[in-house]
Amino acid sequence: METLSPTPRTTVTRGRERVVTDRAALHALLADGLVAHLGVDVGDHPLVLPMAYGVDLDGPDAEGTLYLHGSVAAGWLRAAVGSTVCVTLTELDGLVLARSGFHHSMNYRCAVVVGRLRAVDDPEERSRALDLVVDQMVPGRAATLRPASRKELAATAVLAVPLREASLKARAGGPVDDEADVAAGAWAGHVPVRRVLDAPVHAADAHDRVPDDVLRRCQ
Amino acid sequence: METLSPTPRTTVTRGRERVVTDRAALHALLADGLVAHLGVDVGDHPLVLPMAYGVDLDGPDAEGTLYLHGSVAAGWLRAAVGSTVCVTLTELDGLVLARSGFHHSMNYRCAVVVGRLRAVDDPEERSRALDLVVDQMVPGRAATLRPASRKELAATAVLAVPLREASLKARAGGPVDDEADVAAGAWAGHVPVRRVLDAPVHAADAHDRVPDDVLRRCQ
Repeated sequence: METLSPTPRTTVTRGRERVVTDRAALHALLADGLVAHLGVDVGDHPLVLPMAYGVDLDGPDAEGTLYLHGSVAAGWLRAAVGSTVCVTLTELDGLVLARSGFHHSMNYRCAVVVGRLRAVDDPEERSRALDLVVDQMVPGRAATLRPASRKELAATAVLAVPLREASLKARAGGPVDDEADVAAGAWAGHVPVRRVLDAPVHAADAHDRVPDDVLRRCQ
Repeated sequence: METLSPTPRTTVTRGRERVVTDRAALHALLADGLVAHLGVDVGDHPLVLPMAYGVDLDGPDAEGTLYLHGSVAAGWLRAAVGSTVCVTLTELDGLVLARSGFHHSMNYRCAVVVGRLRAVDDPEERSRALDLVVDQMVPGRAATLRPASRKELAATAVLAVPLREASLKARAGGPVDDEADVAAGAWAGHVPVRRVLDAPVHAADAHDRVPDDVLRRCQ
């Protein structure tokens, strides 16, 4: 079990009891997620935008590489290359309904990755990264698609953030109430929250034989 | 139908066809969500963290107020007061599985709010804001709980961001493929994604009469 080795800027200072220092737990969360939130500095304030992502644990960075992509026409993304960015991935697992507002909480897993945003220029790495972004949505799907065209590749910016500086927090289970509130007898508990993928909807112009990888993803 | 009035820093420059300029759509998204991602500048990089939130459309800001809360001991949050922050709320609605990797996409609704983070000091506004954060999880629940204690209030930082500078993007429906890819006959479609709230789990020390507001939330 490899442990995360956060630097001061990814060392969690609040809620230490919720910190997970197991790199395998980080990888499991990254495997579960679909949308990350990328924070970049755009001058006088941060900008936070949702992004699809892919992960390569055997990539160029010793502890794994997180890939993002966007349009080459996105100026804010181009401008962020070379700067230190924050990529946060949150999975909500439940609502924690305590007997007081103060002890209300959420069950979640959250990874915060801080690192330098690198433009990926190597054609092989770009191609692998884009496949990983597709496979994050439906594992195995990239291999079933035609290769990207030169025009498509030219229109796509591929960005990488090393997974080296990362912290992970998680909460699970029911509420922790004050004794006096428990004694007063009000109900408390938690509500599990899940993401569900429904049956695929065929494109208007598609035949009805849904690929096996897509069917597996929706189960 | 009131329209959003973005300033240059919340004017979407990419993917204009996905921009929604209806303030009611922003309010609907804010009503649906549970976790927002707050981006603050922490010196040499942005930090993005998930936060519970509440919304007051009749609050002190003409176009509504978004409330966040945290521990008064969270230094990064205290330090962000007075600075311009970004609060992003994303709801994932589906995976868009095109015939090419390039046209893969996601269905989503995303609001980006940029504004000055204000510390809420007025006791009445603080109390209302904290109730709204609880009610965002389970509408109506705050009114069923005991009032916050002085000690709890002293430990809680309440923050506000005006909803004035906001942009909204949304995508829905199936993939848009190149004609040649459609002609080649591969399957394409989209997979709806939903968040499900399961049946409440009783706290170990709770009686089994789940409040009606909680039951309604889990349907």
